Amino acid sequence: MPGDNVGKPQMVTCTAPVNIAVIKYWGKRNEELILPINSSLSVTLHQDQLKTTTTVASCRSFQEDRIWLNGKEEDVNHPRLQSCLREIRRLARKRRSDGDPSVDVTFLSHKVHICSVNNFPTAAGLASSAAGFACLVYTLAQLYGVEGELSGIARQGSGSACRSMYGGFVQWIMGQRADGKDSVAQQVEPESHWPELRILVLVASAERKPVGSTSGMQTSVETSRLLKHRADSVVPDRLKQMIEAVHKKDFAAFAELTMKDSNQFHATCLDTYPPIFYLNNVSRQVISLVHQYNRHCGETRVAYTFDAGPNAVIYTLQEHLAEFVQVVRHFFPPESNGEKFFKGLPVDHAVLSEELTKDICLEPMPKGISYIISTEAGPGPCVMQDPIQHLLGADALPKKNV
Amino acid sequence: MPGDNVGKPQMVTCTAPVNIAVIKYWGKRNEELILPINSSLSVTLHQDQLKTTTTVASCRSFQEDRIWLNGKEEDVNHPRLQSCLREIRRLARKRRSDGDPSVDVTFLSHKVHICSVNNFPTAAGLASSAAGFACLVYTLAQLYGVEGELSGIARQGSGSACRSMYGGFVQWIMGQRADGKDSVAQQVEPESHWPELRILVLVASAERKPVGSTSGMQTSVETSRLLKHRADSVVPDRLKQMIEAVHKKDFAAFAELTMKDSNQFHATCLDTYPPIFYLNNVSRQVISLVHQYNRHCGETRVAYTFDAGPNAVIYTLQEHLAEFVQVVRHFFPPESNGEKFFKGLPVDHAVLSEELTKDICLEPMPKGISYIISTEAGPGPCVMQDPIQHLLGADALPKKNV
Repeated sequence: MPGDNVGKPQMVTCTAPVNIAVIKYWGKRNEELILPINSSLSVTLHQDQLKTTTTVASCRSFQEDRIWLNGKEEDVNHPRLQSCLREIRRLARKRRSDGDPSVDVTFLSHKVHICSVNNFPTAAGLASSAAGFACLVYTLAQLYGVEGELSGIARQGSGSACRSMYGGFVQWIMGQRADGKDSVAQQVEPESHWPELRILVLVASAERKPVGSTSGMQTSVETSRLLKHRADSVVPDRLKQMIEAVHKKDFAAFAELTMKDSNQFHATCLDTYPPIFYLNNVSRQVISLVHQYNRHCGETRVAYTFDAGPNAVIYTLQEHLAEFVQVVRHFFPPESNGEKFFKGLPVDHAVLSEELTKDICLEPMPKGISYIISTEAGPGPCVMQDPIQHLLGADALPKKNV
Repeated sequence: MPGDNVGKPQMVTCTAPVNIAVIKYWGKRNEELILPINSSLSVTLHQDQLKTTTTVASCRSFQEDRIWLNGKEEDVNHPRLQSCLREIRRLARKRRSDGDPSVDVTFLSHKVHICSVNNFPTAAGLASSAAGFACLVYTLAQLYGVEGELSGIARQGSGSACRSMYGGFVQWIMGQRADGKDSVAQQVEPESHWPELRILVLVASAERKPVGSTSGMQTSVETSRLLKHRADSVVPDRLKQMIEAVHKKDFAAFAELTMKDSNQFHATCLDTYPPIFYLNNVSRQVISLVHQYNRHCGETRVAYTFDAGPNAVIYTLQEHLAEFVQVVRHFFPPESNGEKFFKGLPVDHAVLSEELTKDICLEPMPKGISYIISTEAGPGPCVMQDPIQHLLGADALPKKNV
């Protein structure tokens, strides 16, 4: 793969996954290096449903670095993008000077064309920057023939991107060093560890664009006393318990920790000054629905978690999936019952007992959820071998259909 | 006043105020004695707008204790009501045994009829139990000729009732003793201290009845790590700052502490498991409106605070009142513009600049607020001298119009 330095562009295409934290990251101790105030843990979602694809081309003849995101050319001078480019090239040079002859130093100075697309709408509110930066770093590493630990570079693109560098269950260890070298992601268990686990993304009909996470967490760090306490005193224990729950595949423990941590994150947003609200009426109805459903079942079968937006991500087990999807459909009657409402892994049909729907004291909220994506845990970034999958054409510009 | 023990009922009528905390009480360390996990501070609202009136009659011939609340007879055996009756009689007996001959011990054993009404709708969601228990304890104390510290008894009816025993700015000192004897209210400043301060109650059109505060705070104490931290580490400093702001009449400091403390209380509700939500869409629009209005003005002119429900209580100064009322009217267009929407102390008309309404990025929310009550800080409980104000007739039953 590494450049044989001719006039024809070298091209690599890779894909990377979205991840959804169950122990949340909120707040940086170093803005520039993106070092968090606490460790976090996430589940990597399967790329069959949600992924970013990135092609990077490099050529001696390129005049300048360029980037296209979801079909639109963007400013390549974005500082975080530049951080990733600089760091991966620095790592490649270091490998070379450490004696790896496969790294071509001249090639590293060539300009690049980057083209990246998501297979899910931005409106899904799924931290697309995590998959995006993970994919960029992974693809550049392939291009430059760099192997080994790359999550520390992805982290400098977008904090949570470091967790998208691995499949399955991944922790981002906050680290202690001022230079951030020990702030990296680590796989806790692979995706094959818990095959029964299922994930639903409930895309809420959002009213307005919420406060961005970068500025939101900065204000939280500056103003919330509760956030500091959470990071220092609550998360360390909770993370240990979560890792244990994952190891043991103890769904009830996993689910309760997930819900508590989501709520605590949103509590620290409310303790921010001025306060930040990410949950809307739909989110609150989902929260209430999950608690009432679990109470009805007499056990914790379903968990919710919310990032910096109103969409719920639901964790459950295969055996309860069909019923819960039907419960969601009942309390959020969709506009149409067609396929538009339901995407992803197929789910069996289930019939709800009257007892169940009566026991849940909620008014149905029509059209509150615009669609559901059904998925599962999946692997980390992958290289696409077939050139047909390149997003850039022979002219190193985005193909027509991108 | 104390009983001359004839066949005719002895009757006393008093009024007591509502209070609105600016440093919130949430969580008990002792459920039975109602001892809080942190000290709190409130402003007593003026009884011209919001008050409870209570008549207590006592007579040798009464067969049993009876109570009428807002025209409806209720169970007199409510444990907290019994606590107040028992404690006030115990105090009266103690005064007698301490040598005060004016206390008639026989009279203390007579049954009582209690009749209590609020001059504001329960729907206003203004902790009516605080005014109610303060009024009950104060009226019983008048009947039995007991003077001095009574807030510790009111506290045993409803925690925040102890703060309604004084006018102006009142702190409830949490105390340290296991028997609760040092958990009492104390006036920080009288109502005359800050005559420019104004208070608006914005009654939100509530969707449903929220979780009651007694069970809510119990769940919070059991499950919220953030609540414990708040009580132990945040409130003590914040209370000192608040008392200083009140002493200095520093509105900006008072307002910011008030908003931060309201938000932190609601944050701990969200950190409760399962989470508790008291704020609804209307509440969030009020919060956003206040922050945007203050930002537009370049200074903190208005503060919000929310108790265990969606209604906002607004603190501002006389000079800004008219404009802010107009701002509320603009962003929550009332159903009718008549008097029904606006109650209480009159407010001048103000015209909003286009610049102001444009600078506030909010969609108006028609009918989100059902009405506004305008008031100010006011005095503590009062005795009604005129027998015409008794709520019980000569037959010791509620008068027809009660």
